This record gives sequence, structure tokens and C-alpha cells, in this order.
Amino acid sequence: MPNYLAIDAGGTSTRAVFLAPSGQCLGYGISGGGNPVSRGFDGAMDSLLGASKAALGGAPQPLISVTVGMAGASLELPKHLFAERFKPLGLMGNVVIESDLLAAFYSGTHQDDGYALIAGTGAVAARIAGGRLGAVADGTGWLLGDSGSGFWLGHEVARAVAAALDGRGAPTALTELVLADLGIALDPSSRSQGRVTAQQQLIVKTYELRPVELSRFAPLVFALPDDAVAQEIIARCAAALAQTLTAVADTSVSGPLIFGGSVLTKGGTVGAAVLAQLGRSAEAAGYGGVFETEPALVADGVVGAAVLALKRNGETVDASVFERINSTLAALRG
Amino acid sequence: MPNYLAIDAGGTSTRAVFLAPSGQCLGYGISGGGNPVSRGFDGAMDSLLGASKAALGGAPQPLISVTVGMAGASLELPKHLFAERFKPLGLMGNVVIESDLLAAFYSGTHQDDGYALIAGTGAVAARIAGGRLGAVADGTGWLLGDSGSGFWLGHEVARAVAAALDGRGAPTALTELVLADLGIALDPSSRSQGRVTAQQQLIVKTYELRPVELSRFAPLVFALPDDAVAQEIIARCAAALAQTLTAVADTSVSGPLIFGGSVLTKGGTVGAAVLAQLGRSAEAAGYGGVFETEPALVADGVVGAAVLALKRNGETVDASVFERINSTLAALRG
Repeated sequence: MPNYLAIDAGGTSTRAVFLAPSGQCLGYGISGGGNPVSRGFDGAMDSLLGASKAALGGAPQPLISVTVGMAGASLELPKHLFAERFKPLGLMGNVVIESDLLAAFYSGTHQDDGYALIAGTGAVAARIAGGRLGAVADGTGWLLGDSGSGFWLGHEVARAVAAALDGRGAPTALTELVLADLGIALDPSSRSQGRVTAQQQLIVKTYELRPVELSRFAPLVFALPDDAVAQEIIARCAAALAQTLTAVADTSVSGPLIFGGSVLTKGGTVGAAVLAQLGRSAEAAGYGGVFETEPALVADGVVGAAVLALKRNGETVDASVFERINSTLAALRG
Repeated sequence: MPNYLAIDAGGTSTRAVFLAPSGQCLGYGISGGGNPVSRGFDGAMDSLLGASKAALGGAPQPLISVTVGMAGASLELPKHLFAERFKPLGLMGNVVIESDLLAAFYSGTHQDDGYALIAGTGAVAARIAGGRLGAVADGTGWLLGDSGSGFWLGHEVARAVAAALDGRGAPTALTELVLADLGIALDPSSRSQGRVTAQQQLIVKTYELRPVELSRFAPLVFALPDDAVAQEIIARCAAALAQTLTAVADTSVSGPLIFGGSVLTKGGTVGAAVLAQLGRSAEAAGYGGVFETEPALVADGVVGAAVLALKRNGETVDASVFERINSTLAALRG
């Protein structure tokens, strides 16, 4: 009896699940980054096929379709190139590419209306209506936006330390943590040409990194609950994310609120601060009741890819099917 | 009778002046970028020698010394490499490399104590005491700081437009100007995968630029005196620059305040806003009276390089010598 293959293709890792029309998960596999924009088409395909083969247990299986959740820019790729590669695995129908935002949303709910807020390396919010993307805010990348993302946090940390070192900003315990991370000794009395030596070294070491690597400093803000500068960065992070989510709110759409990405699911304080901000800004904007008050946290988009595989092929996904996908997948993931 | 050669070596252009110990300017020349970090040593030397030969009128002249004002990172370069290249021009003594911050400061005053605030592509402040750099704040580059610089302004403009397009930020007339600059048509009702099409095009076009090229959007904020978003960016720019200057303020040093760089000397509103902020923050921090209330605006550092050439060689530079340098140089520049 033919089944489904659903894939969550992320920038650093790819997850595939083989599942029955009932929602019963039959196999699971993981591999490396599966984003064609960052890895190239062939590199991404290697990851997709690697995770898929593992999910299928190594042998071809009759597959009704292959559903892939991928970042926005990949949605325009020609589908037949994907289909060719999946035929040897047993594909009878098509490859369907879905937005990673939808995959994240459906990882937290089986309902077709609601909201998703993702803050990992990037930051983006989406309104989902009738199972489709109704509006998207931010997700504009490290230079133009992604306000409240991991990069944004790390960048703010680096700027706060640079400012603390020459007195533009308040002293902060972040300075010690960032300089230690970069192997720089701090002697505030040491200056060269008027500039504090540690700041000169910070400049040299920071510009040796690719800009996006500043996200390495993001976790430091969560290590300093008593540091005013760190807490102020967290507060601005939460305010930015609340603003991004509020931008997609619409009184005609209400439903579950899904939180994804490490900043929201691992940095406990940010998630709570966003909810506090959200209560205020949503009420101020007349959006009270649009968001469910308790967000569902999702670690990745593989459950949502499975939900999309079933829904897009006309299978029913109700609360019990959604629960079956989650419990049988959890058992496979161990 | 031997004379002096003074050079202001900038990132995009280089200016040289040939002057007598009296401050009388005898020749002037310009050429391309003279920064060894961005142009390489040989490329920078070509610019330095090109401007110098023009200043000397094409023939070698007996030169007591050559004084070069250059950005901080160049100050560690081995001086004898410079000296070798200037011997064919008549150099009898040494090449002395001075900070471009000192050259900017002395372009506005002959006094040895005071403050300089420069906001061009980058942003930096310095306290000068006894003719040396006492403290430097910011100038930490586009990624770590340069708050209030031309890059910072352009970056804030681009971010404000990205936010306005998806409703995170307030609507602004900057949107029309930025999209027109990039050749993007604005149809707010056109969306793809939930995202406003014009924003998707903004993302693509912006990431094709080098980050520092965002400074091209800086002048746009000055074109919109009635736009709240543009005015808010200008206000934050001025606040950041005032904070940078305040960071180097010290009650033991008072004297002239020198403003340099296009943001402060061409964007009239920023300079005035910095002074307003400064009054407040300097007073709050107990620095009242440290800054002179009327800043001197300087267009570049060539006058300061000339002042440094004389001072470092024991020549007197009083108000009348300073005035002679300025008036005779102005005549040469035409």
C-alpha cells in the first residue's frame, strides 16, 4: 500500500519521515543541510535523498508523493528536477515544495488558521489562513531586518561591548564574556593612539568573522540575569519579535500561535517577554483574542511536513491524526 | 631654503601641500585614495607621491620632513619604507605619520587641547590633550559601531523601508525614494508566498550590494523634513554622535570643538541636533564648559597636516600662522 514521504529541509540539517495515510510514522532519517540556496542544488539533493533513504529503511517504497518544507527562496525551483531524483526511491506522483513557515506552523497544530513566529538565526512571522500563507513579516535577512533573531542578539552584544569599552555605553559583564570568547585580555588602562587596546583587538577579531557569525554571542545574554545591558538587549529583542508578529495579525484570522527557533524555544526569557509585550501591543492594536495565549513550541518542521503531505493529498488531519503523527514520530526519534 | 611637505591621505582622495616654515603655502596637489589598508602599500604610495609631485610643481625641492595624516591602522607601518620613496622628491629628514584624527582637529584650530567629532562614512570622536590623542571613542567600523555615520544612516533607512513594507514600521516617504533608487515598482497589493513583492525585490537588490554601500541611502533622510520616520532617524543619529563625543569628554581638557565629515558638515540638521543633544548630555554629565559652543567645520585634514608638520618640527603655530596657512592654501585651491 502506497505511503507518503515528508521532508523538513533546513540550512544545517534535514529530517525525513515515511508515513501512512493514517498518520502512522513508519520510518525517520536525518542528514545535513538541505537548502539549495546555501548548499547548491546537488548538495541539497544529497541531503534530501540521504535522509529519505534512511527513513525508507534503505529500500524503495511505493510513494504517493514527496512533500518538502523549504525556505522561501527555494519555492521557485523547478519541481521536475526534484521528481527525477526521487523516482528511484519509489515516487509515483509529484514532489511538492512547501514553505518552511507552513511546515513550522503545522508542526504545532493541525488547524488551518493561526500564526507562527520563528526566531532562530533569522526572525520571521506569518499569518496562516485556510492552510496558506496570508501574510509574512520580516525574514528580511541580517542586514535589512531579522530583528530579534540570533544574529540580531549577537550583533547587539558585540556592539554593546564595543560601546562599553570606550565609555559610549554602560559597563556590562558581557564585555568579559565576549573578550574571553575571542581570547582578548582586558586591561582598561592600556591604550594606543588614544584607543583602548582591548577594543582595537575586538575590532580586528570581529572583522575576521563573517558578519552572520556574530550570532555566536547570542547565548551570552541569557547567562547574565542581573546585567542591565544584557537584560535591555533581551527586552528589545522581545519587543522587536512582538512587533513582527503584530504586523501579520488580522482580526479576521484567529487560531493557534506557534513559536519556533532557538531564541524562542531555548531562551526561555525571550518567549515569556514576547508574550508579555504581545498582550500589550495586541490589545493596543485591537487584536485581543486573535492569538491563543499559550504558544506551542516547535523544535523543527518535520511534523508539519508530514501534516502537509497528508492535507495536500486530501487525507483528514484531525486532533487524533495529529497526535498519532507526533507520538509515532517521537517513538522513532527515540 | 628647505620647506615642509604635508599630506592628508584619505580613503578616496589625497591632498598634499608644500609650505614654508612661516605657514605660507607654496603649492598644492590632489590625487586618489591614499590609505594603505584599502589600496595596498604601493597603490597608496602612488597617490601620496602623485599629490606631492603636483604640490612641488613637478621638480624636487629641499624638504625638512614629510608629514602624513592617515587612518589609525596605518600608524604602525614602517616609516623607512615611506622615506625611501620621498627621497627622490628632495626629502632630507624623516616621514612622520600622524593620526587622521589629529589632522582633522588641527584643520580647525592651532590650539593643542580640544575635541574632534568626525561623521563621514564612519563616526569617531577624539579628545586631544597637549597635541596628542588622549582618548578615542567609536570609529569601530560599520559592524561594531560607527553609530551616526553615513553607513549607519543608510542602514537605518534601508531597515526602516523594509519594516514599512510589511507593517512592522510606520509608513514613510523613504520607501518611495529607496525603491526608486533601486528601480523597484511599489504595488502594495502584490504578494507572493505571503510576502509583499516589493520587499522581496528590496531583499534581492540590497544583498547584491556590499554592506558599506548602504551609505548611498544616507542623503535621503535630509530630503524629507516632514517625514516622521526620517526625522526620527536623524534624531537618533544626533543622539549617537553626541554620546560618542561625550564619551571622550574630560573636565581637565577644554578647548575648541571640531566637526568633520559629510554628515556633520553637509547635513546641516545633524550638526545642529548634535549641539542640542550635547548641551543636555554634557551638562547632565558635568561637562558644561568643556566644549566650545560653536564648532569649527572642517572639510578635510590637509590644513591640520600642515599644522602638524610645523608643530612637530618646533615651528610656532599661533593664530596668525594658522590664518596664513588657511588663506594661502585657499588661494592655491582656488
